[in-house]
Amino acid sequence: MEVPAYETLLIERLGQAQLDSPLNADSTRFVDEQRRVTVSAEADDIRESLAEGGPLPSFELAGPRRKVFFSPQNLVCGIVTCGGICPGLNNVIRSITLTLFQNYGVQRVLGFRYGYAGLAPDAVNPPLELAAERVDDIQELPGTILGSSRGPVPAEAMLETLRNYGVKILFTVGGDGTLRGASALAAEIKRQKLSISVIGVPKTIDNDLNWLMRSFGFSTAVDAATRVLDAAHCEAKCAWNGIGLVKLMGRHSGFIAAHATVASGIVNFCLVPEVPFSLEGKNGFLNVLEQRMQRKHHAVVVAAEGAGQDLIQTGGPVERDASGNVRFKDIGAFLKAEIEGHFARRSIPVNVRYIDPSYTIRGLPASAVDAEFCVSLGQHAVHAGMSGRTDMVVGAWNQHYTHVPIKAVVESRKQIDTQSPIWQTVLNTTHQPACMIG
Amino acid sequence: MEVPAYETLLIERLGQAQLDSPLNADSTRFVDEQRRVTVSAEADDIRESLAEGGPLPSFELAGPRRKVFFSPQNLVCGIVTCGGICPGLNNVIRSITLTLFQNYGVQRVLGFRYGYAGLAPDAVNPPLELAAERVDDIQELPGTILGSSRGPVPAEAMLETLRNYGVKILFTVGGDGTLRGASALAAEIKRQKLSISVIGVPKTIDNDLNWLMRSFGFSTAVDAATRVLDAAHCEAKCAWNGIGLVKLMGRHSGFIAAHATVASGIVNFCLVPEVPFSLEGKNGFLNVLEQRMQRKHHAVVVAAEGAGQDLIQTGGPVERDASGNVRFKDIGAFLKAEIEGHFARRSIPVNVRYIDPSYTIRGLPASAVDAEFCVSLGQHAVHAGMSGRTDMVVGAWNQHYTHVPIKAVVESRKQIDTQSPIWQTVLNTTHQPACMIG
Amino acid sequence: MEVPAYETLLIERLGQAQLDSPLNADSTRFVDEQRRVTVSAEADDIRESLAEGGPLPSFELAGPRRKVFFSPQNLVCGIVTCGGICPGLNNVIRSITLTLFQNYGVQRVLGFRYGYAGLAPDAVNPPLELAAERVDDIQELPGTILGSSRGPVPAEAMLETLRNYGVKILFTVGGDGTLRGASALAAEIKRQKLSISVIGVPKTIDNDLNWLMRSFGFSTAVDAATRVLDAAHCEAKCAWNGIGLVKLMGRHSGFIAAHATVASGIVNFCLVPEVPFSLEGKNGFLNVLEQRMQRKHHAVVVAAEGAGQDLIQTGGPVERDASGNVRFKDIGAFLKAEIEGHFARRSIPVNVRYIDPSYTIRGLPASAVDAEFCVSLGQHAVHAGMSGRTDMVVGAWNQHYTHVPIKAVVESRKQIDTQSPIWQTVLNTTHQPACMIG
Amino acid sequence: MEVPAYETLLIERLGQAQLDSPLNADSTRFVDEQRRVTVSAEADDIRESLAEGGPLPSFELAGPRRKVFFSPQNLVCGIVTCGGICPGLNNVIRSITLTLFQNYGVQRVLGFRYGYAGLAPDAVNPPLELAAERVDDIQELPGTILGSSRGPVPAEAMLETLRNYGVKILFTVGGDGTLRGASALAAEIKRQKLSISVIGVPKTIDNDLNWLMRSFGFSTAVDAATRVLDAAHCEAKCAWNGIGLVKLMGRHSGFIAAHATVASGIVNFCLVPEVPFSLEGKNGFLNVLEQRMQRKHHAVVVAAEGAGQDLIQTGGPVERDASGNVRFKDIGAFLKAEIEGHFARRSIPVNVRYIDPSYTIRGLPASAVDAEFCVSLGQHAVHAGMSGRTDMVVGAWNQHYTHVPIKAVVESRKQIDTQSPIWQTVLNTTHQPACMIG
Repeated sequence: MEVPAYETLLIERLGQAQLDSPLNADSTRFVDEQRRVTVSAEADDIRESLAEGGPLPSFELAGPRRKVFFSPQNLVCGIVTCGGICPGLNNVIRSITLTLFQNYGVQRVLGFRYGYAGLAPDAVNPPLELAAERVDDIQELPGTILGSSRGPVPAEAMLETLRNYGVKILFTVGGDGTLRGASALAAEIKRQKLSISVIGVPKTIDNDLNWLMRSFGFSTAVDAATRVLDAAHCEAKCAWNGIGLVKLMGRHSGFIAAHATVASGIVNFCLVPEVPFSLEGKNGFLNVLEQRMQRKHHAVVVAAEGAGQDLIQTGGPVERDASGNVRFKDIGAFLKAEIEGHFARRSIPVNVRYIDPSYTIRGLPASAVDAEFCVSLGQHAVHAGMSGRTDMVVGAWNQHYTHVPIKAVVESRKQIDTQSPIWQTVLNTTHQPACMIG
Repeated sequence: MEVPAYETLLIERLGQAQLDSPLNADSTRFVDEQRRVTVSAEADDIRESLAEGGPLPSFELAGPRRKVFFSPQNLVCGIVTCGGICPGLNNVIRSITLTLFQNYGVQRVLGFRYGYAGLAPDAVNPPLELAAERVDDIQELPGTILGSSRGPVPAEAMLETLRNYGVKILFTVGGDGTLRGASALAAEIKRQKLSISVIGVPKTIDNDLNWLMRSFGFSTAVDAATRVLDAAHCEAKCAWNGIGLVKLMGRHSGFIAAHATVASGIVNFCLVPEVPFSLEGKNGFLNVLEQRMQRKHHAVVVAAEGAGQDLIQTGGPVERDASGNVRFKDIGAFLKAEIEGHFARRSIPVNVRYIDPSYTIRGLPASAVDAEFCVSLGQHAVHAGMSGRTDMVVGAWNQHYTHVPIKAVVESRKQIDTQSPIWQTVLNTTHQPACMIG
Repeated sequence: MEVPAYETLLIERLGQAQLDSPLNADSTRFVDEQRRVTVSAEADDIRESLAEGGPLPSFELAGPRRKVFFSPQNLVCGIVTCGGICPGLNNVIRSITLTLFQNYGVQRVLGFRYGYAGLAPDAVNPPLELAAERVDDIQELPGTILGSSRGPVPAEAMLETLRNYGVKILFTVGGDGTLRGASALAAEIKRQKLSISVIGVPKTIDNDLNWLMRSFGFSTAVDAATRVLDAAHCEAKCAWNGIGLVKLMGRHSGFIAAHATVASGIVNFCLVPEVPFSLEGKNGFLNVLEQRMQRKHHAVVVAAEGAGQDLIQTGGPVERDASGNVRFKDIGAFLKAEIEGHFARRSIPVNVRYIDPSYTIRGLPASAVDAEFCVSLGQHAVHAGMSGRTDMVVGAWNQHYTHVPIKAVVESRKQIDTQSPIWQTVLNTTHQPACMIG
Repeated sequence: MEVPAYETLLIERLGQAQLDSPLNADSTRFVDEQRRVTVSAEADDIRESLAEGGPLPSFELAGPRRKVFFSPQNLVCGIVTCGGICPGLNNVIRSITLTLFQNYGVQRVLGFRYGYAGLAPDAVNPPLELAAERVDDIQELPGTILGSSRGPVPAEAMLETLRNYGVKILFTVGGDGTLRGASALAAEIKRQKLSISVIGVPKTIDNDLNWLMRSFGFSTAVDAATRVLDAAHCEAKCAWNGIGLVKLMGRHSGFIAAHATVASGIVNFCLVPEVPFSLEGKNGFLNVLEQRMQRKHHAVVVAAEGAGQDLIQTGGPVERDASGNVRFKDIGAFLKAEIEGHFARRSIPVNVRYIDPSYTIRGLPASAVDAEFCVSLGQHAVHAGMSGRTDMVVGAWNQHYTHVPIKAVVESRKQIDTQSPIWQTVLNTTHQPACMIG
């Protein structure tokens, strides 16, 4: 495992935390400031690191601190949710809000509306005043009560809004782009020498952010995706020469596809962005699929939305969404046509049943596993913010909750390593060739 | 309500049922042969019918008879499932099989594979020998263990297969086309003066067969569709000017869309094949949608797949599937483009999130409501077959189980009556105009 | 079927409805006042009734009327939910509220808190002001946002509260006891010559109210109960000589137990209050169970909570709850001990796994089937109230929505008829003897 | 964290693995034999360990090896499932079976019936011949197709059975007692100098086995338990002074209760075996509960079945089950009575609704998260067995799959550390006092 340098994993602070924590000292186990979680848990990696001298690459341990930076009296905090819907958003909002009010005694929490757009000085919608009663049952509802949107707002503009409302800690819940925006905001705050903390709660339904063991909503999405695969399997088996074809989320990383493949146990081909394949040729996908069909007369094929993008010829210009992300070509419809064409040319009748569950796997309340994770992330985010940390996210790593600098999280994208256990398990379960290039 | 003539509701019989029923006489309440269920339960309709003299239009009551036509000894029965997957197929197969074996003491039940194709003399797959153990847990699995397919097989050919296997009662589980095939088979049997019964278990996930209060699988599909609407609602509300757009099953009849609309309580526009609409014009859909968006800034739109087909210009020839059904143009993708175009022309930014759940709402185990219905349908189908009835289906009407001649079921398609309570409730709940023609 | 006299099915009215309905006349199909739904849909019953002369026993058809009794301007309406939790309560509250506000233009709706206790002049909790926003998402939550309680409040006291708040239509959602209270209130209103309407929405998770085809929440409960039976089946099959024993709701009527038995398809003994049985003796339950165990080495037994009460010897005084209902002795624990004792005496080792799901089958959001039913009941309740009807409930019968006088609903309890299709299907599916009296 | 000595974490081997692995070398990433995962991932712990010299306490990394000990030709393997039902058992059986057949080319796999009882020489039920078709859809079914039981069988007797069938690798799926039995069997094998591998797949729905980050089925159980808590919350809130009381699994460790508490976010008191409490006294549970009730008028209380056992006075002798486990006294019924008594003495009317979901939270198919974990555990168990390891289990630790000696797993029980993040999060979420001893 390639591990980052220790220095790049240190967390920014607004200044010395000098106030006694308002948390109940009887029940709270404060975390010593110097505790750290090693990046690698492999004995060889650790010995190698230490042999080079210097500190072990490691993350700061999350948790409540004895000393806090902000006094809860008159403290105003803000929450904003950005990007696509993800199961657990309301759980995170609720956890942050209740922890601020009930544990730290903070008295005002603002919920900015519809993503960073709600932090623009000319926002259409004013922030929501959050209260314990307002967030009471929201964990049972999908989506985010604050609304969300894509796209950045200039750091200066967002900071102006924070200053207008007197916000001292901003919790930003979002993915790659959102976190870059949060980091830019933290930089602008630093430039202006202000004491405002920006704490990220990383959100990626694709689970593709670096140095985070998992992300909230991912489990729920895999659960839902697995049920979709079951439906595709049903279609495939109930038709003679049936092929169930499913497109799942996963623009750059095929984690949902891979995990749902293993969980379902009934997938024959799992196509992900990380593993190129060709359609034609002896070892190409179509030929291998044909062999499978001749043997078993049904098959289930899963493609992450970012898989095989190089195979799709369009000729049009590259399209982008509001966040600047490239709009992907539709691998599902493309594969459906290619598969049907291939078998038609061979006069083998097949029934291709294509399913694109799209938003149905994300517009769900969080499963218990995710709900619990969201509660913990929210509490740890509050602990971090109150302690004066900034420009960081809360994460989970090696069985601990951690603080991770935003720059470490966004410097590259987490992808499936084909040497990793999850991909090995995909191969062992699907029996697809490791390489399908003709 | 327009009711059919009494005569058209009489059931064909292979001959006099003269054998004592093998059912346990201690626990069975045999149904008197002459009991009938009125078609209309409205007092005025009944008085009017009676005023004209003649018998009341009514269905034969289903249930076990004291005398049966077939002796269970050496009796061979067959089951075939045809057309699209529907929740409950395995429950029906299980119920028929267990009732034949355990209640009537029949000793051989054959499951023909992959629809009527399995009844062709040159079928690729031989029939499955069914047994109590084989069907033990199948009610927990979606789909049909027999497989299914679309498309007819000539009646003579199917009859040849039945004769080859010595099948005396064939249970056909399927929809409109399947039942026409079953009726043709019954006619051929009659022409050849054979004593073979053909009993249909009506299957239509769209609930669009005549004189049947409901069809199995429909409830499960509405349940699943409602959850999809919830996801669309989540997407719509979580985006500023969000529009959740969902396409649901329903080629000629919008029952799934209508019932899921009412169940969810969050739909603003429900478009069905029965109610034409225009896109443009003051009262056209797009204008009414725009008004809604200006008022509430989010909306949920549901379209049955057969809605608005007249609006979609293609120019290509009409396409058909293996059963001869016209392939529908994609109303969902069409509406998405039209909505986006409309608001773009008005420079109103909207976020249209389109969901086509397709097969995910049918590849499910039956809900309890459907499972119970399937058990009853299966048992009543066996009672009917053993009594020597033929060319009929088992149904439910006015709180009773009934026998309905296939010709009554297939003579026209059940559609939403815009004067009916369900559509009135749709209008009251969505507040959409009764007429959206510009 | 024993049908009530026509006269007992006529609905009370506060007076002549003379105002034009505020409903949108373009989209509304008003129901003619004289339309009626026959109680029996059996042709023989109808002929017999008519032969006796006089009108057919029938229910008034529900739906919007052209003329209404109340003007929506300044109209104050109230809602109260009573008795045990039932899936769909929030859906009913939402439907009534939205229909009053959005369809009829009513301007004030009060939600009385915690059952009839909230209608006491000295109620601890004042009523909730309901608004469209307040009920927006409540259909996704289980329970009732108004709270509930058991036990009556004197009619005079409740009427005083209604007068204090100026309530003109009270919607009471509850069961047997609640409806008796509503009827007493309507009688007191009549005695005082006031124009206040009392409309019931019948609530019984046990589905044991007369002249109602079904009750909301029942389907959801059967769904949940079926999943519990699946767990019991799993326990039974996974142990050698395993016996899964489940107690389900059903004090006087075993409908949940019977329907879940059929739906699951895996129950061997279904014990309900309507069918007495003995433990000992050749044909007694324990002996029959032993035979089953010797044959198959596992069994699933379901008992409604009211089953076999006569078998349980306690000696203590009869206990009652706040509503005056007799507290039942625990048939589940009793059977567990009896079964274990029986097999111990015969030295046959068995594993009895007892499940009492209690409140878990009712603290659920409504399934789609129930949710849709609740929306319709709520809308029809409002139509009925606005038209000036009183002392009635909305129901469903023979595929129509109906008005039923409260007195008809509460005069006796609906129970399983052992000659009915559902019990016949239970016997055919479980293969338990029709009579288990030693 | 107290970590075990390195030596105690070394894995037993039957001998030198000298055969080339039959796995597909193109797609398989073989794991180097010496790779190890550190027990602690805290930087300070690691430095401290290393400062003492000697190797880092660490687990062997799981995965396929280049060299295997057994030749798949003529190899007979066995699987046995023991103890209570747990979601995922069928997924583990399927994964082991398919990996043996399809990846390693093994030709015979026997499924011993009903736990270790099936390994007794005089077993009532012969083993099941497993095949790919037999395990095809079993992951969709709860429970174990092999059946299960409690209680030991002498190692000599089990070994005799293994020798009779020629079994060379036995996979035992079970908990604490089962693993002790497996270890005793491995010892007897060693004593007799045989080459038979015994590999455990740890099963504990309570997640209370040492050195295993998590156990399969636990997530599914927490999911189900969380839904039960939601029902209790609904009951509590819908009644005035309502108290929802739930008993959850957890004899010695309250992990299910703790995780479900956090996931649900609506629990006010979480009682676990690890944290003693008193009923009476100023800080005792009843008094603190009373304060909560006075403030909020509803509460949710969760008790793990092993909580507060010291408080329950019975006087009878200690009872034990077939495995020798002490039968617990019923903390749920006890608390219900104590709560009702307490409030009755204070004349405060409360509504206590008690739910004991018992087997309903374990008789479920595995959730996707658990299903995926089961597939991986099964594959890694096979890799370990084929490599000639024995007397070990497969586990997960610090984001890797591991080999753990059985003796390390069973030497003590994993319990909630009140200083750990999960318990801290419980306290932060419930706001219950850290200590409730009067």
